[in-house]
Amino acid sequence: MRSLSSSTKDFVGVVGLGQMGGHMANNLHAKGKKLVICDVDPANVKALESKGAIVAKTPREVAERCDTVLTMLPNTAIVEGVYLGQDGFYDAIRPGQVFIDSSTIDPIFTKKLSEQVHEKRALIVDAPVSGGVGGAEKGTLTFMVGGTSAEFDAVKPTLELMGKNIVHCGVSSTGQVAKVCNNLALAIQMVSVAEAMNLGVKLGMDPKVLAGIMNTSTSNCWSSSVYNPYPGVMEGVPSSNGYKGGFASKLMKKDLGLGVDAAKQAEVSTPLTFAVHQLYNMIVNQGDGNKDFGYVLQFLKGKSDK
Amino acid sequence: MRSLSSSTKDFVGVVGLGQMGGHMANNLHAKGKKLVICDVDPANVKALESKGAIVAKTPREVAERCDTVLTMLPNTAIVEGVYLGQDGFYDAIRPGQVFIDSSTIDPIFTKKLSEQVHEKRALIVDAPVSGGVGGAEKGTLTFMVGGTSAEFDAVKPTLELMGKNIVHCGVSSTGQVAKVCNNLALAIQMVSVAEAMNLGVKLGMDPKVLAGIMNTSTSNCWSSSVYNPYPGVMEGVPSSNGYKGGFASKLMKKDLGLGVDAAKQAEVSTPLTFAVHQLYNMIVNQGDGNKDFGYVLQFLKGKSDK
Amino acid sequence: MRSLSSSTKDFVGVVGLGQMGGHMANNLHAKGKKLVICDVDPANVKALESKGAIVAKTPREVAERCDTVLTMLPNTAIVEGVYLGQDGFYDAIRPGQVFIDSSTIDPIFTKKLSEQVHEKRALIVDAPVSGGVGGAEKGTLTFMVGGTSAEFDAVKPTLELMGKNIVHCGVSSTGQVAKVCNNLALAIQMVSVAEAMNLGVKLGMDPKVLAGIMNTSTSNCWSSSVYNPYPGVMEGVPSSNGYKGGFASKLMKKDLGLGVDAAKQAEVSTPLTFAVHQLYNMIVNQGDGNKDFGYVLQFLKGKSDK
Amino acid sequence: MRSLSSSTKDFVGVVGLGQMGGHMANNLHAKGKKLVICDVDPANVKALESKGAIVAKTPREVAERCDTVLTMLPNTAIVEGVYLGQDGFYDAIRPGQVFIDSSTIDPIFTKKLSEQVHEKRALIVDAPVSGGVGGAEKGTLTFMVGGTSAEFDAVKPTLELMGKNIVHCGVSSTGQVAKVCNNLALAIQMVSVAEAMNLGVKLGMDPKVLAGIMNTSTSNCWSSSVYNPYPGVMEGVPSSNGYKGGFASKLMKKDLGLGVDAAKQAEVSTPLTFAVHQLYNMIVNQGDGNKDFGYVLQFLKGKSDK
Repeated sequence: MRSLSSSTKDFVGVVGLGQMGGHMANNLHAKGKKLVICDVDPANVKALESKGAIVAKTPREVAERCDTVLTMLPNTAIVEGVYLGQDGFYDAIRPGQVFIDSSTIDPIFTKKLSEQVHEKRALIVDAPVSGGVGGAEKGTLTFMVGGTSAEFDAVKPTLELMGKNIVHCGVSSTGQVAKVCNNLALAIQMVSVAEAMNLGVKLGMDPKVLAGIMNTSTSNCWSSSVYNPYPGVMEGVPSSNGYKGGFASKLMKKDLGLGVDAAKQAEVSTPLTFAVHQLYNMIVNQGDGNKDFGYVLQFLKGKSDK
Repeated sequence: MRSLSSSTKDFVGVVGLGQMGGHMANNLHAKGKKLVICDVDPANVKALESKGAIVAKTPREVAERCDTVLTMLPNTAIVEGVYLGQDGFYDAIRPGQVFIDSSTIDPIFTKKLSEQVHEKRALIVDAPVSGGVGGAEKGTLTFMVGGTSAEFDAVKPTLELMGKNIVHCGVSSTGQVAKVCNNLALAIQMVSVAEAMNLGVKLGMDPKVLAGIMNTSTSNCWSSSVYNPYPGVMEGVPSSNGYKGGFASKLMKKDLGLGVDAAKQAEVSTPLTFAVHQLYNMIVNQGDGNKDFGYVLQFLKGKSDK
Repeated sequence: MRSLSSSTKDFVGVVGLGQMGGHMANNLHAKGKKLVICDVDPANVKALESKGAIVAKTPREVAERCDTVLTMLPNTAIVEGVYLGQDGFYDAIRPGQVFIDSSTIDPIFTKKLSEQVHEKRALIVDAPVSGGVGGAEKGTLTFMVGGTSAEFDAVKPTLELMGKNIVHCGVSSTGQVAKVCNNLALAIQMVSVAEAMNLGVKLGMDPKVLAGIMNTSTSNCWSSSVYNPYPGVMEGVPSSNGYKGGFASKLMKKDLGLGVDAAKQAEVSTPLTFAVHQLYNMIVNQGDGNKDFGYVLQFLKGKSDK
Repeated sequence: MRSLSSSTKDFVGVVGLGQMGGHMANNLHAKGKKLVICDVDPANVKALESKGAIVAKTPREVAERCDTVLTMLPNTAIVEGVYLGQDGFYDAIRPGQVFIDSSTIDPIFTKKLSEQVHEKRALIVDAPVSGGVGGAEKGTLTFMVGGTSAEFDAVKPTLELMGKNIVHCGVSSTGQVAKVCNNLALAIQMVSVAEAMNLGVKLGMDPKVLAGIMNTSTSNCWSSSVYNPYPGVMEGVPSSNGYKGGFASKLMKKDLGLGVDAAKQAEVSTPLTFAVHQLYNMIVNQGDGNKDFGYVLQFLKGKSDK
C-alpha cells in the first residue's frame, strides 16, 4: 500500500481551474504551495504552468503526486467523474491523504463520496464557498466545512490561504447543506425585495426612501441592504450596472436546483424554493441567464411599453 | 364655518382603543395630553375614563371636540365608516384640523380619503406603525408617515409622544405603502428562513449552527437573526415559547391581503406575495391563526408521526 | 309610484354595446324586440340607431323607458355606476321591472346590488355568459343565471333570444360564482396542458401523439381536446394562428382577478388560482395581453435562442 | 453466446408482484402463459406459486429462464438494481430477448437503460400503465409504450393479455414521458377542480349544480366529470367514500416528483407542476398520504372549526 512520502507532502493538487478555482490556486501558489494542476481546458492551466505549476494529465495523476487535493468543479456529475470515474482519484487514494471539495454539489452525493473515501482511511471535507469571484481573487472567501473535527483541523491551514472565514458546519456534507440552505434563502429574499421595491415604487415611493425604511425595519436583509436590486439605490452593485457581473441568474438556478433535489429527497416541504427555482428557470429561458440574480426585479417588472 | 378654538386645541381625540390604540392613548395621556376617546367596546374606554379622559358617543363628537384626531382601527371598511359614515368625522372637519390614521389599511383608499379631507382644508397623514404591542406600550413605535412636509411637521410632535422613530415616507399614502411593502417582504423572508432551517436540520445540521452561518452570510435577515422561527435557536422569541405572543399569523394574512390587493390594482407581478398569502390562509384555515407568524416553520414541517 | 305601463313593456333596454353587448342587442332586435340603447362610445350606437333603436342619453333614461333592461359592461365599478351612480338606474327602478346583468363582475357586489334592487320590488338576475364573441354573434351563448325561480322564469324568454343554453345556478350571485369558478379552473387547466405539452415535446414526443394520449386519458380536458395550446396540434384554434383571436390573456387575467378577490373575501385557499393570476399578469406586463390565453405555453417555453 | 431456445420461449418472467404486478401476472397466467416470478416479499409469490408458477431466486434467474420479461417496480432505483445490479438481468441478456418495463420511473434513466439493453441486441420497451389496481385486475389497463415499431409489434400481443388499450407513444422513453406528462396535468387539473368547488360552495352554490356547469363548459375535465373530489357529487368515487381507495396522494407525489426531475433536467418551466408537487408533499407530511389524491380538496378546505 502506498502511503505518504516526503515527495508528495509539499504539493497541493488542484482540479478545476475556472473562474473560482483559478484564483484559489493563485492564492495557494502566492502563499508558498507547490501546485499540481489539472483542468479540461488547456487555456486554464497556462498561467499557472508559467509560474511553475506541474500540469497533470489526469485527476488520478494529481492524487498520486499530492497529499492534499482541492477540487472546484461545476456540478455533481463532474465531481463524481473526477473522484470515481476512469482516470479519477479513486485508485490512487491512500491513508492519511486529504481531499477538499469546494464545489457546490448535491449534499446527498457528498455524503456517499465521503463514505467511500473514508473506506480507504483518507480524509475528506466538503468545503463550498461564499464570496464569489472577488472573494476568490482576494483570498477572502468563506468556507463552509463538513467533516469530523480531525478533518476540519487538517484542512483549516490550507483553507486559510484562500479565505478568511473557515466555518465548521458539522459532519460530512453539512458544508454543502449550509451552502444550499443559505442560497435558497438568499434567492427567496432577493425576490422578496424585488417584489416590495417594484410595488412600492409603482405606488409612488422613492426607491431610496423605501430601501432605507426596509433596511431599518423588519424586512432588513442582505439583498436589500448590501445588494439592492433596484437600479440606482446603491452604488457599486450589479443593479446599478445593468445587472452585469455579480452572481449570474443561471448559477442561482443551478443552486436552487440542488435545493429542489435535496428537499425532494428529504421530503421537506419548501414551496417558495420550488417557486423561485421556476422563476430563475424562466429568466434563463428568456435568455437572461448571465445577468445578476437581482435581475428578477426587471423580470417581474416586465416591459415599460406594454 | 367652524375653525380652531382654544377649547379644542388642547385635546387629542383617539378613536380605536384596542391592544395598540389603548397603549398609544395611555402614552399621550401620560405625557400631558387631554383625551377625548371613542371605541365600540365599552370595556376599552373604562381605564382611560377613570384617568380623566372624556368619552365621546360618536367619532363625529371626537372630531368636534379636538383639533388633533388619531385613529387606530382594524381594517379599511372601519376606517371608512369612522371618517365618512353616519356619525363619522366628515361633517365636523374644519380647516387646519389634523388627522392621523395609524391603522394599517389599503393604500389606495388612503389616497382617496386624503383628497376628501384636503377639500376641507384640513391636514391628514397616514401613519401606520411597526413595533407591535410592546412598542405601543413602551412608546417606542416606528411611525411611517405619508403626507406633505407641512403635514409631517404638524404631526411629528404628537407622534413623538408614542414612538421613537418618525419617518417621512413621501406623499399621502406612502406610509401605508411602506408598511405593506415591508410586511410582504417580511413574510416572504420568514418563509425563506423556515424552508432553509427545516431542510438543513432534516439533512443533519444543528439548527443553531445553521442559523449562525445564515446570520453571518448572504441570507442574513431580521427573521433569521432577530426572530428565528426554529424552536430553541434563540431565547425570548415566540418560536421558543410555542409560537405564543408575537405577530399572529392571521394578522400577517391580513397584511398580505393588503399587498395582494395593492399589487393587483397596480398590476405589479408579485408571485411570492401571492404564494405566502395562500400559505398563511392555509394556516388560518387549519385553526392556527393565533400563532405567531413564525409558525409557518411547523406548518411546513407537518406532523412527526406521519 | 310609477309602475309598469304598456308604453315601456315592449321595449328592452341595453346598456353596454361593446363586442359582446352589440351582438346581443342585434339578436334582440332581429328577433323582434324594440330597443332603447346607451353606450359611452357614440360609435357603438350608430348601427343599431340606423335600424330604429332609440338612443338614450343616460342609463336612467333607459330604465325609465323599458321594463326589461340588460347590461353588458366591462367591470364591477362601471356596473356600480350604471345602477347606482349619477344618472344611473336607481331612482327609476319600479316594482316588477326586470334587470339582467350579463357582465362578469365581483359576485359579492352582485349580491349587494340584488338586495338593493329587491328593496324596490323589482327583479334582477346576474347572467354572465360563456361562448365568446362568436357565441354572442350567433346567438348561441350559455347564460349562467343567479336569482329566484320566479326571476329565472321571468328572464328566460329574453335570454333565449341570445343564447341556447340557459342554466339556473341558484340564488342571486351564483351566476357570477359559476362563471368565476369555471374560468379559474379553465385557466389552471390551460396551464396544466401547456406544461405537459412543453415538457413532453422537449423530451422527444410528437405533440399530436401526446395530445391524443392526454385526450383519451385521465388528463383529458377542454383545453387539451378542444383548444390545444400547442401550435399545429389542432386546426382552427388560436394556437395554430399565432394566438390571434380567442380569449385574450388580459381578459383571463381580469377574470382570475375576480377569483382572487372572491377567494380572499371568502377565506378559501386557492393557491393555483393565485399562481396563474400572477402568470397572466406577467404575460400582460410583457406586452402580450392581447394574445389568446393559450399563449401561456409560449411564455413558459421562452425564447428558442437563449 | 446464449440465444433463444424452445425451453425459454414459452415463459414470461415477472419481477415485481405488488398490487399492480400481482394482478398483471394473474392475467398472463389466466390467458395461458407459463410464469417465472420473483419478488422481494415471499408473501407476494405464494398465490401464483400454488397455481404453478416457477419461483426464481433472483432477477437474473428470471432472465435466464424466459425470453420475455416484465417488470413492475416501485421506483427508478429498484428498476436499476433489477436490471443492472448484482444478480440482476444484465449478464443474462441475450439477442432477441424482450423486456417490458411497466414501472413508472424517470424517463431519462429509461433512455439510458434502453441503450444498454440494445447493446446486447435485445429488445426493450417502457410501458407504464394507467387504469389503476382495478384495471390491472380486470385486464383493462392502458399501456403507453416507448420503443421502435419492431419493439412495439413484439410486445403488443403480450400487453393485450393485460390491457385493452396499447398505445405506441414513440421512441424509447416516450411511454414514460407520456405517463409523467399525463399525471402532472392530471394532478394540476384535480387541484383546479378542488379550488373551484371549494370556492363555489363557500359562495353559496350547490356542489352538484356547480359540477354540472363545469362538466358542460370550458372547465370540463376528467377530474371533474369522472372523479369529482367534492363529497357527494358523484357515487362510486373515493371522495364519496372518505377518500379511501383510488390513487393515493403519496403515489401522486411520487409521479409529480418524476415530473419535477424531468422538467429540471430538460430545463422546461413548469411552475404549477412544482407547486402541486409541494401541495402533495404537504399532504403526505400531514399524515394523509394514503388518501386518494382528490383529498387535496379537504386539505385546502382546512378544518371547519377554525
